[in-house]
Amino acid sequence: MEIVKGLKNGNVKALSRAITLVENELAGYQSILLSLENHRKPVIGITGPPGAGKSTLTDALIGEIVAAGKKVAVICVDPSSPFNKGALLGDRIRMSRWYDNENVFIRSLASRGSMGGLNSKIIEITDVIKESIFDIIIVETVGVGQSEIEIAGLADVTVVVLVPEAGDEIQTMKAGLMEIADVFAVNKSDRPGADLFVRNLRLMLAPAFSKTNDEIKIISTVGQTGAGINDLYDAIQHSVQIKKQTDKKAWLLADKVYQLIQNKMMKGFDRELIKTEIEKELMNNNLNIYKFALAYGK
Amino acid sequence: MEIVKGLKNGNVKALSRAITLVENELAGYQSILLSLENHRKPVIGITGPPGAGKSTLTDALIGEIVAAGKKVAVICVDPSSPFNKGALLGDRIRMSRWYDNENVFIRSLASRGSMGGLNSKIIEITDVIKESIFDIIIVETVGVGQSEIEIAGLADVTVVVLVPEAGDEIQTMKAGLMEIADVFAVNKSDRPGADLFVRNLRLMLAPAFSKTNDEIKIISTVGQTGAGINDLYDAIQHSVQIKKQTDKKAWLLADKVYQLIQNKMMKGFDRELIKTEIEKELMNNNLNIYKFALAYGK
Repeated sequence: MEIVKGLKNGNVKALSRAITLVENELAGYQSILLSLENHRKPVIGITGPPGAGKSTLTDALIGEIVAAGKKVAVICVDPSSPFNKGALLGDRIRMSRWYDNENVFIRSLASRGSMGGLNSKIIEITDVIKESIFDIIIVETVGVGQSEIEIAGLADVTVVVLVPEAGDEIQTMKAGLMEIADVFAVNKSDRPGADLFVRNLRLMLAPAFSKTNDEIKIISTVGQTGAGINDLYDAIQHSVQIKKQTDKKAWLLADKVYQLIQNKMMKGFDRELIKTEIEKELMNNNLNIYKFALAYGK
Repeated sequence: MEIVKGLKNGNVKALSRAITLVENELAGYQSILLSLENHRKPVIGITGPPGAGKSTLTDALIGEIVAAGKKVAVICVDPSSPFNKGALLGDRIRMSRWYDNENVFIRSLASRGSMGGLNSKIIEITDVIKESIFDIIIVETVGVGQSEIEIAGLADVTVVVLVPEAGDEIQTMKAGLMEIADVFAVNKSDRPGADLFVRNLRLMLAPAFSKTNDEIKIISTVGQTGAGINDLYDAIQHSVQIKKQTDKKAWLLADKVYQLIQNKMMKGFDRELIKTEIEKELMNNNLNIYKFALAYGK
Protein backbone atom coordinates (compact mmCIF):
# COMPACT_ATOMS: atom_id res chain seq x y z
CA MET A 1 0.00 0.00 0.00
CA GLU A 2 1.43 3.34 -1.12
CA ILE A 3 0.44 5.21 2.03
CA VAL A 4 2.06 2.65 4.35
CA LYS A 5 5.30 2.86 2.40
CA GLY A 6 5.18 6.65 2.51
CA LEU A 7 4.50 6.56 6.24
CA LYS A 8 7.51 4.35 6.96
CA ASN A 9 9.77 6.35 4.64
CA GLY A 10 9.08 9.53 6.57
CA ASN A 11 6.69 11.19 4.17
CA VAL A 12 4.77 13.66 6.34
CA LYS A 13 1.88 13.94 3.91
CA ALA A 14 1.45 10.18 4.06
CA LEU A 15 1.43 10.38 7.87
CA SER A 16 -1.19 13.09 7.76
CA ARG A 17 -3.33 11.11 5.35
CA ALA A 18 -2.92 7.90 7.35
CA ILE A 19 -4.17 9.65 10.49
CA THR A 20 -7.20 10.96 8.61
CA LEU A 21 -8.01 7.49 7.27
CA VAL A 22 -7.62 5.88 10.69
CA GLU A 23 -9.51 8.58 12.56
CA ASN A 24 -12.52 8.35 10.26
CA GLU A 25 -12.31 4.65 9.38
CA LEU A 26 -11.97 5.43 5.69
CA ALA A 27 -11.08 2.80 3.09
CA GLY A 28 -7.64 1.36 3.74
CA TYR A 29 -7.46 2.18 7.44
CA GLN A 30 -7.48 -1.48 8.41
CA SER A 31 -4.45 -2.26 6.24
CA ILE A 32 -2.58 0.61 7.81
CA LEU A 33 -3.27 -0.61 11.33
CA LEU A 34 -2.41 -4.21 10.50
CA SER A 35 0.92 -3.13 9.02
CA LEU A 36 2.14 -1.38 12.14
CA GLU A 37 5.30 -2.79 13.68
CA ASN A 38 4.78 -1.12 17.04
CA HIS A 39 8.05 0.70 17.40
CA ARG A 40 8.74 1.76 20.94
CA LYS A 41 8.77 5.51 21.11
CA PRO A 42 8.14 7.64 24.16
CA VAL A 43 4.70 9.20 24.47
CA ILE A 44 4.61 12.23 26.73
CA GLY A 45 1.24 13.29 28.08
CA ILE A 46 0.80 16.92 29.04
CA THR A 47 -2.31 17.72 31.03
CA GLY A 48 -3.63 20.05 33.68
CA PRO A 49 -6.49 22.44 34.39
CA PRO A 50 -7.52 25.06 31.84
CA GLY A 51 -5.36 28.17 31.97
CA ALA A 52 -2.25 26.50 33.34
CA GLY A 53 -0.35 27.31 30.17
CA LYS A 54 -0.10 23.82 28.72
CA SER A 55 0.18 25.02 25.12
CA THR A 56 2.88 27.56 25.88
CA LEU A 57 4.80 24.92 27.78
CA THR A 58 4.36 22.41 24.97
CA ASP A 59 5.61 25.03 22.54
CA ALA A 60 8.72 25.56 24.66
CA LEU A 61 9.25 21.80 24.95
CA ILE A 62 9.10 21.47 21.16
CA GLY A 63 11.90 24.03 20.96
CA GLU A 64 13.96 22.05 23.48
CA ILE A 65 13.47 18.76 21.67
CA VAL A 66 14.24 20.21 18.24
CA ALA A 67 17.36 21.90 19.64
CA ALA A 68 18.44 18.44 20.88
CA GLY A 69 18.31 17.25 17.26
CA LYS A 70 15.17 15.16 17.62
CA LYS A 71 11.90 15.03 15.74
CA VAL A 72 8.68 15.52 17.66
CA ALA A 73 5.02 14.91 16.84
CA VAL A 74 2.40 16.75 18.86
CA ILE A 75 -1.27 15.82 19.18
CA CYS A 76 -3.46 18.50 20.69
CA VAL A 77 -6.72 17.07 21.94
CA ASP A 78 -9.20 19.93 22.21
CA PRO A 79 -12.68 19.78 23.68
CA SER A 80 -15.12 19.87 20.83
CA SER A 81 -17.41 22.20 22.77
CA PRO A 82 -18.04 25.42 20.84
CA PHE A 83 -17.49 27.43 24.03
CA ASN A 84 -13.76 26.77 24.04
CA LYS A 85 -13.04 27.47 20.41
CA GLY A 86 -11.83 31.08 20.83
CA ALA A 87 -9.49 30.50 23.72
CA LEU A 88 -7.94 27.43 22.16
CA LEU A 89 -7.32 29.08 18.84
CA GLY A 90 -5.47 31.84 20.73
CA ASP A 91 -3.28 29.29 22.51
CA ARG A 92 -2.53 27.55 19.26
CA ILE A 93 -1.22 30.63 17.45
CA ARG A 94 2.15 30.47 19.18
CA MET A 95 2.59 26.84 18.27
CA SER A 96 1.84 27.54 14.62
CA ARG A 97 5.39 28.81 14.12
CA TRP A 98 6.42 25.16 13.95
CA TYR A 99 4.15 24.31 11.06
CA ASP A 100 6.92 24.72 8.48
CA ASN A 101 9.57 22.92 10.50
CA GLU A 102 10.23 19.44 9.14
CA ASN A 103 11.22 18.17 12.58
CA VAL A 104 7.83 19.01 14.03
CA PHE A 105 4.45 17.50 13.25
CA ILE A 106 1.36 19.02 14.87
CA ARG A 107 -2.14 17.66 14.66
CA SER A 108 -5.31 18.76 16.40
CA LEU A 109 -7.92 16.20 17.36
CA ALA A 110 -11.35 16.69 18.79
CA SER A 111 -11.93 15.20 22.21
CA ARG A 112 -14.68 12.67 22.63
CA GLY A 113 -16.94 15.29 24.21
CA SER A 114 -16.72 18.49 26.16
CA MET A 115 -16.37 16.57 29.42
CA GLY A 116 -13.21 14.72 28.47
CA GLY A 117 -12.34 11.47 26.88
CA LEU A 118 -9.23 11.84 24.79
CA ASN A 119 -10.43 10.82 21.33
CA SER A 120 -11.82 7.42 20.50
CA LYS A 121 -8.93 6.83 18.06
CA ILE A 122 -6.07 8.21 20.12
CA ILE A 123 -4.37 4.83 20.52
CA GLU A 124 -4.56 4.10 16.81
CA ILE A 125 -3.25 7.57 15.96
CA THR A 126 -0.27 7.43 18.31
CA ASP A 127 0.49 3.97 16.95
CA VAL A 128 0.47 5.35 13.39
CA ILE A 129 2.79 8.19 14.38
CA LYS A 130 5.21 5.72 16.00
CA GLU A 131 5.56 4.14 12.58
CA SER A 132 6.81 7.42 11.09
CA ILE A 133 10.12 9.22 11.50
CA PHE A 134 9.24 11.14 14.65
CA ASP A 135 11.20 10.21 17.77
CA ILE A 136 8.93 11.54 20.48
CA ILE A 137 5.17 12.00 20.68
CA ILE A 138 3.52 14.63 22.84
CA VAL A 139 -0.18 14.37 23.61
CA GLU A 140 -1.56 17.58 25.10
CA THR A 141 -5.02 17.63 26.64
CA VAL A 142 -7.07 19.51 29.18
CA GLY A 143 -7.23 17.51 32.40
CA VAL A 144 -10.96 17.17 32.84
CA GLY A 145 -13.34 14.26 33.11
CA GLN A 146 -12.07 11.01 31.77
CA SER A 147 -9.08 12.26 29.84
CA GLU A 148 -6.55 12.15 32.67
CA ILE A 149 -7.23 8.50 33.36
CA GLU A 150 -6.80 7.67 29.72
CA ILE A 151 -3.66 9.69 29.32
CA ALA A 152 -2.02 7.86 32.22
CA GLY A 153 -2.48 4.61 30.29
CA LEU A 154 -1.46 6.06 26.96
CA ALA A 155 1.59 8.09 27.96
CA ASP A 156 4.90 6.74 29.17
CA VAL A 157 5.37 9.94 31.14
CA THR A 158 2.59 12.21 32.27
CA VAL A 159 3.36 15.86 32.99
CA VAL A 160 0.73 17.67 35.05
CA VAL A 161 0.93 21.43 34.59
CA LEU A 162 -0.17 23.63 37.49
CA VAL A 163 0.10 27.32 38.33
CA PRO A 164 0.93 28.85 41.74
CA GLU A 165 -2.61 30.28 41.96
CA ALA A 166 -3.86 26.71 42.27
CA GLY A 167 -2.62 26.89 45.88
CA ASP A 168 -5.99 26.86 47.59
CA GLU A 169 -7.55 24.53 45.10
CA ILE A 170 -4.84 21.96 45.38
CA GLN A 171 -6.19 20.56 48.64
CA THR A 172 -9.44 19.75 46.94
CA MET A 173 -7.82 18.95 43.65
CA LYS A 174 -9.11 15.91 41.95
CA ALA A 175 -7.15 12.98 43.27
CA GLY A 176 -7.05 11.70 39.68
CA LEU A 177 -4.87 14.51 38.44
CA MET A 178 -2.51 14.12 41.38
CA GLU A 179 -2.14 10.40 41.03
CA ILE A 180 -1.23 10.28 37.39
CA ALA A 181 1.64 12.75 37.51
CA ASP A 182 5.17 11.51 36.89
CA VAL A 183 6.38 15.08 36.65
CA PHE A 184 4.74 18.28 37.90
CA ALA A 185 5.46 21.47 36.00
CA VAL A 186 4.66 24.47 38.17
CA ASN A 187 4.26 26.92 35.35
CA LYS A 188 4.16 30.73 35.50
CA SER A 189 6.53 30.27 38.43
CA ASP A 190 7.67 33.90 38.20
CA ARG A 191 4.39 34.80 39.89
CA PRO A 192 4.20 35.51 43.64
CA GLY A 193 3.73 32.50 45.88
CA ALA A 194 5.37 30.06 43.49
CA ASP A 195 8.01 28.86 45.95
CA LEU A 196 5.46 28.32 48.70
CA PHE A 197 3.27 26.42 46.25
CA VAL A 198 6.12 24.13 45.28
CA ARG A 199 6.91 23.48 48.95
CA ASN A 200 3.29 22.62 49.70
CA LEU A 201 3.03 20.40 46.67
CA ARG A 202 6.15 18.55 47.81
CA LEU A 203 4.61 18.06 51.26
CA MET A 204 1.40 16.75 49.73
CA LEU A 205 3.32 14.25 47.66
CA ALA A 206 5.43 13.05 50.56
CA PRO A 207 3.28 10.01 51.44
CA ALA A 208 3.21 8.94 47.80
CA PHE A 209 6.96 9.47 47.65
CA SER A 210 7.63 7.15 50.54
CA LYS A 211 5.47 4.40 49.07
CA THR A 212 7.29 4.07 45.78
CA ASN A 213 10.86 4.42 44.72
CA ASP A 214 9.93 6.58 41.75
CA GLU A 215 10.53 10.13 42.69
CA ILE A 216 7.87 12.47 41.39
CA LYS A 217 9.76 15.48 40.09
CA ILE A 218 8.48 19.01 40.57
CA ILE A 219 9.91 21.51 38.08
CA SER A 220 9.34 25.26 38.15
CA THR A 221 8.84 26.68 34.68
CA VAL A 222 7.90 29.86 32.85
CA GLY A 223 6.56 28.79 29.48
CA GLN A 224 6.65 32.31 28.09
CA THR A 225 10.39 32.84 28.71
CA GLY A 226 11.51 29.23 28.48
CA ALA A 227 12.84 29.27 32.06
CA GLY A 228 13.05 25.76 33.52
CA ILE A 229 12.20 24.03 30.24
CA ASN A 230 15.62 22.43 30.11
CA ASP A 231 15.06 20.92 33.57
CA LEU A 232 11.59 19.82 32.56
CA TYR A 233 12.91 18.00 29.52
CA ASP A 234 15.61 16.34 31.63
CA ALA A 235 12.98 15.21 34.15
CA ILE A 236 10.84 13.78 31.35
CA GLN A 237 13.78 11.88 29.83
CA HIS A 238 14.73 10.53 33.25
CA SER A 239 11.14 9.45 33.86
CA VAL A 240 10.92 7.72 30.47
CA GLN A 241 13.89 5.56 31.42
CA ILE A 242 12.67 4.45 34.84
CA LYS A 243 8.98 4.17 34.03
CA LYS A 244 7.22 0.84 33.79
CA GLN A 245 3.53 1.59 33.64
CA THR A 246 2.56 -1.84 32.43
CA ASP A 247 -0.62 -2.34 34.43
CA LYS A 248 -2.36 0.86 33.35
CA LYS A 249 -1.15 0.32 29.82
CA ALA A 250 -2.33 -3.28 29.74
CA TRP A 251 -5.80 -2.20 30.86
CA LEU A 252 -5.93 0.52 28.23
CA LEU A 253 -4.89 -1.90 25.52
CA ALA A 254 -7.25 -4.61 26.77
CA ASP A 255 -10.14 -2.13 26.61
CA LYS A 256 -9.13 -1.16 23.10
CA VAL A 257 -8.86 -4.77 21.99
CA TYR A 258 -12.23 -5.54 23.57
CA GLN A 259 -13.72 -2.58 21.72
CA LEU A 260 -12.15 -3.66 18.43
CA ILE A 261 -13.60 -7.14 18.86
CA GLN A 262 -16.96 -5.63 19.71
CA ASN A 263 -16.92 -3.41 16.63
CA LYS A 264 -16.14 -6.45 14.54
CA MET A 265 -18.82 -8.64 16.10
CA MET A 266 -21.46 -5.94 15.78
CA LYS A 267 -20.73 -5.16 12.15
CA GLY A 268 -23.98 -5.69 10.32
CA PHE A 269 -26.18 -4.79 13.28
CA ASP A 270 -27.64 -1.40 12.63
CA ARG A 271 -29.37 0.63 15.33
CA GLU A 272 -31.47 2.57 12.80
CA LEU A 273 -32.68 -0.61 11.18
CA ILE A 274 -33.45 -2.19 14.54
CA LYS A 275 -35.44 0.91 15.45
CA THR A 276 -37.47 0.73 12.23
CA GLU A 277 -38.26 -2.90 12.84
CA ILE A 278 -39.20 -2.22 16.44
CA GLU A 279 -41.55 0.55 15.37
CA LYS A 280 -43.31 -1.94 13.12
CA GLU A 281 -43.49 -4.49 15.94
CA LEU A 282 -44.73 -1.90 18.42
CA MET A 283 -47.89 -1.59 16.37
CA ASN A 284 -48.43 -5.30 16.85
CA ASN A 285 -48.79 -4.50 20.52
CA ASN A 286 -47.16 -7.65 21.78
CA LEU A 287 -43.46 -7.26 21.26
CA ASN A 288 -41.13 -9.20 23.54
CA ILE A 289 -37.82 -7.44 22.90
CA TYR A 290 -35.85 -10.24 24.55
CA LYS A 291 -37.17 -12.78 22.06
CA PHE A 292 -36.68 -10.19 19.35
CA ALA A 293 -33.01 -9.68 20.30
CA LEU A 294 -32.42 -13.41 20.55
CA ALA A 295 -33.75 -13.96 17.04
CA TYR A 296 -31.66 -11.06 15.77
CA GLY A 297 -28.46 -12.37 17.24
CA LYS A 298 -28.64 -15.57 15.23
CA MET B 1 -40.93 -22.32 35.65
CA GLU B 2 -42.35 -21.88 39.14
CA ILE B 3 -41.36 -18.24 39.45
CA VAL B 4 -42.98 -17.25 36.15
CA LYS B 5 -46.23 -18.90 37.20
CA GLY B 6 -46.11 -17.17 40.56
CA LEU B 7 -45.40 -13.85 38.87
CA LYS B 8 -48.42 -14.14 36.59
CA ASN B 9 -50.66 -15.36 39.41
CA GLY B 10 -49.98 -12.27 41.45
CA ASN B 11 -47.56 -13.71 43.97
CA VAL B 12 -45.62 -10.72 45.25
CA LYS B 13 -42.73 -12.78 46.53
CA ALA B 14 -42.33 -14.27 43.07
CA LEU B 15 -42.29 -10.75 41.61
CA SER B 16 -39.66 -9.68 44.08
CA ARG B 17 -37.55 -12.72 43.32
CA ALA B 18 -37.97 -12.29 39.58
CA ILE B 19 -36.71 -8.71 39.80
CA THR B 20 -33.67 -9.84 41.76
CA LEU B 21 -32.89 -12.56 39.22
CA VAL B 22 -33.26 -10.17 36.29
CA GLU B 23 -31.34 -7.32 37.90
CA ASN B 24 -28.37 -9.52 38.67
CA GLU B 25 -28.62 -11.89 35.70
CA LEU B 26 -28.93 -14.89 38.00
CA ALA B 27 -29.83 -18.36 36.75
CA GLY B 28 -33.28 -18.39 35.18
CA TYR B 29 -33.47 -14.69 34.34
CA GLN B 30 -33.47 -15.41 30.61
CA SER B 31 -36.50 -17.70 30.87
CA ILE B 32 -38.35 -15.03 32.80
CA LEU B 33 -37.66 -12.38 30.16
CA LEU B 34 -38.54 -14.68 27.28
CA SER B 35 -41.87 -15.55 28.92
CA LEU B 36 -43.08 -11.96 29.15
CA GLU B 37 -46.25 -11.18 27.24
CA ASN B 38 -45.71 -7.43 27.29
CA HIS B 39 -48.96 -6.31 28.81
CA ARG B 40 -49.68 -2.67 28.25
CA LYS B 41 -49.68 -0.88 31.54
CA PRO B 42 -49.01 2.80 32.14
CA VAL B 43 -45.56 3.73 33.40
CA ILE B 44 -45.47 7.09 35.17
CA GLY B 45 -42.10 8.75 35.51
CA ILE B 46 -41.62 11.19 38.38
CA THR B 47 -38.50 13.30 38.24
CA GLY B 48 -37.16 16.72 39.18
CA PRO B 49 -34.28 18.36 41.00
CA PRO B 50 -33.22 17.19 44.48
CA GLY B 51 -35.35 18.66 47.25
CA ALA B 52 -38.48 19.19 45.15
CA GLY B 53 -40.38 16.68 47.26
CA LYS B 54 -40.66 13.86 44.74
CA SER B 55 -40.92 11.13 47.37
CA THR B 56 -43.61 12.92 49.36
CA LEU B 57 -45.56 13.50 46.17
CA THR B 58 -45.12 9.88 45.12
CA ASP B 59 -46.34 8.82 48.54
CA ALA B 60 -49.46 10.98 48.13
CA LEU B 61 -50.02 9.61 44.62
CA ILE B 62 -49.87 6.05 45.93
CA GLY B 63 -52.67 6.98 48.34
CA GLU B 64 -54.73 8.42 45.48
CA ILE B 65 -54.26 5.36 43.29
CA VAL B 66 -55.03 2.90 46.09
CA ALA B 67 -58.14 4.90 47.03
CA ALA B 68 -59.25 4.54 43.39
CA GLY B 69 -59.12 0.78 43.87
CA LYS B 70 -56.01 0.17 41.80
CA LYS B 71 -52.74 -1.60 42.47
CA VAL B 72 -49.51 0.34 42.07
CA ALA B 73 -45.86 -0.69 41.85
CA VAL B 74 -43.21 1.92 42.63
CA ILE B 75 -39.58 1.80 41.62
CA CYS B 76 -37.35 4.32 43.39
CA VAL B 77 -34.10 4.82 41.54
CA ASP B 78 -31.60 6.28 43.96
CA PRO B 79 -28.12 7.52 43.20
CA SER B 80 -25.66 4.99 44.50
CA SER B 81 -23.41 7.75 45.78
CA PRO B 82 -22.75 7.43 49.50
CA PHE B 83 -23.30 11.19 49.89
CA ASN B 84 -27.03 10.91 49.32
CA LYS B 85 -27.76 7.92 51.50
CA GLY B 86 -28.92 9.82 54.59
CA ALA B 87 -31.29 12.20 52.85
CA LEU B 88 -32.84 9.47 50.77
CA LEU B 89 -33.46 7.18 53.68
CA GLY B 90 -35.29 10.06 55.38
CA ASP B 91 -37.49 10.57 52.33
CA ARG B 92 -38.25 6.90 52.17
CA ILE B 93 -39.49 6.60 55.72
CA ARG B 94 -42.87 8.11 54.86
CA MET B 95 -43.35 5.71 51.98
CA SER B 96 -42.59 2.72 54.19
CA ARG B 97 -46.14 2.84 55.58
CA TRP B 98 -47.20 1.10 52.36
CA TYR B 99 -44.92 -1.88 52.81
CA ASP B 100 -47.69 -3.99 54.33
CA ASN B 101 -50.38 -2.94 51.85
CA GLU B 102 -51.05 -5.66 49.28
CA ASN B 103 -52.06 -3.09 46.66
CA VAL B 104 -48.66 -1.44 46.79
CA PHE B 105 -45.29 -2.81 45.74
CA ILE B 106 -42.17 -0.71 46.41
CA ARG B 107 -38.68 -1.49 45.25
CA SER B 108 -35.50 0.55 45.44
CA LEU B 109 -32.90 0.30 42.71
CA ALA B 110 -29.45 1.78 42.52
CA SER B 111 -28.91 4.25 39.68
CA ARG B 112 -26.16 3.52 37.21
CA GLY B 113 -23.90 6.06 38.90
CA SER B 114 -24.12 9.21 40.93
CA MET B 115 -24.47 11.31 37.80
CA GLY B 116 -27.65 9.65 36.57
CA GLY B 117 -28.54 6.85 34.30
CA LEU B 118 -31.63 5.11 35.57
CA ASN B 119 -30.44 1.56 36.10
CA SER B 120 -29.08 -0.67 33.40
CA LYS B 121 -31.94 -3.14 33.95
CA ILE B 122 -34.80 -0.65 34.33
CA ILE B 123 -36.54 -1.75 31.11
CA GLU B 124 -36.34 -5.41 32.05
CA ILE B 125 -37.62 -4.67 35.55
CA THR B 126 -40.62 -2.60 34.44
CA ASP B 127 -41.40 -5.34 31.90
CA VAL B 128 -41.37 -7.94 34.68
CA ILE B 129 -43.68 -5.81 36.84
CA LYS B 130 -46.11 -5.41 33.92
CA GLU B 131 -46.48 -9.18 33.98
CA SER B 132 -47.69 -9.10 37.57
CA ILE B 133 -51.00 -7.94 39.05
CA PHE B 134 -50.11 -4.28 39.44
CA ASP B 135 -52.08 -1.86 37.25
CA ILE B 136 -49.80 1.16 37.27
CA ILE B 137 -46.03 1.52 37.57
CA ILE B 138 -44.35 4.60 39.00
CA VAL B 139 -40.65 5.18 38.43
CA GLU B 140 -39.26 7.90 40.65
CA THR B 141 -35.79 9.30 40.01
CA VAL B 142 -33.73 12.40 40.61
CA GLY B 143 -33.58 14.44 37.41
CA VAL B 144 -29.86 14.69 36.89
CA GLY B 145 -27.51 13.65 34.16
CA GLN B 146 -28.78 11.06 31.78
CA SER B 147 -31.77 9.87 33.75
CA GLU B 148 -34.30 12.38 32.46
CA ILE B 149 -33.65 11.42 28.87
CA GLU B 150 -34.08 7.78 29.69
CA ILE B 151 -37.22 8.31 31.72
CA ALA B 152 -38.89 10.11 28.83
CA GLY B 153 -38.42 7.00 26.72
CA LEU B 154 -39.43 4.61 29.46
CA ALA B 155 -42.48 6.40 30.88
CA ASP B 156 -45.79 6.92 29.17
CA VAL B 157 -46.24 10.08 31.20
CA THR B 158 -43.44 12.07 32.75
CA VAL B 159 -44.18 14.28 35.74
CA VAL B 160 -41.55 16.92 36.47
CA VAL B 161 -41.71 18.13 40.06
CA LEU B 162 -40.60 21.69 40.80
CA VAL B 163 -40.82 24.06 43.77
CA PRO B 164 -41.65 27.80 43.70
CA GLU B 165 -38.10 28.59 44.86
CA ALA B 166 -36.89 27.34 41.51
CA GLY B 167 -38.12 30.68 40.11
CA ASP B 168 -34.75 32.19 39.34
CA GLU B 169 -33.20 28.93 38.30
CA ILE B 170 -35.92 28.09 35.87
CA GLN B 171 -34.56 30.40 33.20
CA THR B 172 -31.33 28.51 33.20
CA MET B 173 -32.97 25.20 33.89
CA LYS B 174 -31.72 22.34 31.90
CA ALA B 175 -33.68 22.28 28.67
CA GLY B 176 -33.79 18.52 29.03
CA LEU B 177 -35.95 18.59 32.12
CA MET B 178 -38.33 21.10 30.50
CA GLU B 179 -38.72 19.15 27.30
CA ILE B 180 -39.64 15.83 28.77
CA ALA B 181 -42.48 17.02 30.98
CA ASP B 182 -46.02 15.95 30.15
CA VAL B 183 -47.20 17.26 33.49
CA PHE B 184 -45.56 19.75 35.82
CA ALA B 185 -46.23 19.44 39.52
CA VAL B 186 -45.42 22.70 41.29
CA ASN B 187 -44.99 21.21 44.72
CA LYS B 188 -44.87 22.97 48.08
CA SER B 189 -47.24 25.44 46.43
CA ASP B 190 -48.34 26.82 49.81
CA ARG B 191 -45.06 28.69 49.88
CA PRO B 192 -44.87 32.38 48.91
CA GLY B 193 -44.42 33.11 45.23
CA ALA B 194 -46.08 29.92 44.07
CA ASP B 195 -48.73 31.63 41.93
CA LEU B 196 -46.18 33.85 40.24
CA PHE B 197 -44.00 30.83 39.57
CA VAL B 198 -46.87 28.95 37.93
CA ARG B 199 -47.67 32.00 35.75
CA ASN B 200 -44.05 32.30 34.65
CA LEU B 201 -43.82 28.61 33.94
CA ARG B 202 -46.94 28.85 31.80
CA LEU B 203 -45.42 31.75 29.88
CA MET B 204 -42.21 29.81 29.32
CA LEU B 205 -44.13 26.86 27.97
CA ALA B 206 -46.26 28.98 25.66
CA PRO B 207 -44.15 28.43 22.53
CA ALA B 208 -44.10 24.72 23.10
CA PHE B 209 -47.83 24.81 23.72
CA SER B 210 -48.55 26.43 20.36
CA LYS B 211 -46.44 23.87 18.51
CA THR B 212 -48.24 20.78 19.65
CA ASN B 213 -51.80 19.90 20.45
CA ASP B 214 -50.84 18.19 23.65
CA GLU B 215 -51.40 20.59 26.46
CA ILE B 216 -48.71 20.42 29.10
CA LYS B 217 -50.58 20.56 32.39
CA ILE B 218 -49.28 22.50 35.37
CA ILE B 219 -50.68 21.35 38.68
CA SER B 220 -50.08 23.02 42.05
CA THR B 221 -49.57 20.52 44.83
CA VAL B 222 -48.62 20.23 48.47
CA GLY B 223 -47.28 16.75 48.94
CA GLN B 224 -47.34 16.99 52.74
CA THR B 225 -51.09 17.77 52.97
CA GLY B 226 -52.23 16.04 49.81
CA ALA B 227 -53.57 19.26 48.31
CA GLY B 228 -53.79 19.08 44.51
CA ILE B 229 -52.95 15.37 44.36
CA ASN B 230 -56.38 14.58 43.00
CA ASP B 231 -55.85 17.04 40.14
CA LEU B 232 -52.38 15.64 39.55
CA TYR B 233 -53.70 12.11 39.23
CA ASP B 234 -56.42 13.32 36.83
CA ALA B 235 -53.81 15.09 34.71
CA ILE B 236 -51.67 11.94 34.62
CA GLN B 237 -54.63 9.76 33.58
CA HIS B 238 -55.59 12.26 30.90
CA SER B 239 -52.01 12.33 29.63
CA VAL B 240 -51.80 8.53 29.54
CA GLN B 241 -54.79 8.45 27.20
CA ILE B 242 -53.58 11.05 24.70
CA LYS B 243 -49.91 10.18 24.82
CA LYS B 244 -48.16 8.54 21.90
CA GLN B 245 -44.45 8.72 22.58
CA THR B 246 -43.54 6.12 20.00
CA ASP B 247 -40.36 7.71 18.65
CA LYS B 248 -38.58 8.11 21.98
CA LYS B 249 -39.80 4.70 23.04
CA ALA B 250 -38.66 3.06 19.81
CA TRP B 251 -35.17 4.50 20.28
CA LEU B 252 -35.01 3.33 23.86
CA LEU B 253 -36.08 -0.16 22.87
CA ALA B 254 -33.74 -0.20 19.86
CA ASP B 255 -30.84 0.72 22.14
CA LYS B 256 -31.84 -2.01 24.55
CA VAL B 257 -32.13 -4.59 21.76
CA TYR B 258 -28.75 -3.51 20.37
CA GLN B 259 -27.25 -3.89 23.83
CA LEU B 260 -28.84 -7.32 24.29
CA ILE B 261 -27.39 -8.44 20.96
CA GLN B 262 -24.02 -7.03 21.95
CA ASN B 263 -24.06 -8.85 25.29
CA LYS B 264 -24.84 -12.05 23.45
CA MET B 265 -22.17 -11.59 20.79
CA MET B 266 -19.53 -10.72 23.35
CA LYS B 267 -20.26 -13.65 25.62
CA GLY B 268 -17.02 -15.55 25.95
CA PHE B 269 -14.82 -12.50 25.49
CA ASP B 270 -13.37 -11.60 28.83
CA ARG B 271 -11.63 -8.29 29.49
CA GLU B 272 -9.55 -9.75 32.33
CA LEU B 273 -8.36 -12.59 30.16
CA ILE B 274 -7.56 -10.25 27.28
CA LYS B 275 -5.57 -8.10 29.70
CA THR B 276 -3.57 -11.08 30.94
CA GLU B 277 -2.77 -12.11 27.40
CA ILE B 278 -1.80 -8.57 26.45
CA GLU B 279 0.55 -8.37 29.42
CA LYS B 280 2.28 -11.49 28.13
CA GLU B 281 2.48 -10.05 24.63
CA LEU B 282 3.73 -6.69 25.90
CA MET B 283 6.87 -8.45 27.08
CA ASN B 284 7.43 -9.62 23.53
CA ASN B 285 7.80 -5.96 22.66
CA ASN B 286 6.19 -6.20 19.27
CA LEU B 287 2.47 -6.46 19.83
CA ASN B 288 0.17 -5.22 17.07
CA ILE B 289 -3.15 -5.00 18.92
CA TYR B 290 -5.12 -4.72 15.68
CA LYS B 291 -3.82 -8.08 14.47
CA PHE B 292 -4.33 -9.40 17.99
CA ALA B 293 -7.99 -8.30 18.03
CA LEU B 294 -8.58 -9.68 14.55
CA ALA B 295 -7.27 -13.09 15.58
CA TYR B 296 -9.34 -12.95 18.75
CA GLY B 297 -12.54 -12.20 16.93
CA LYS B 298 -12.39 -15.39 14.93
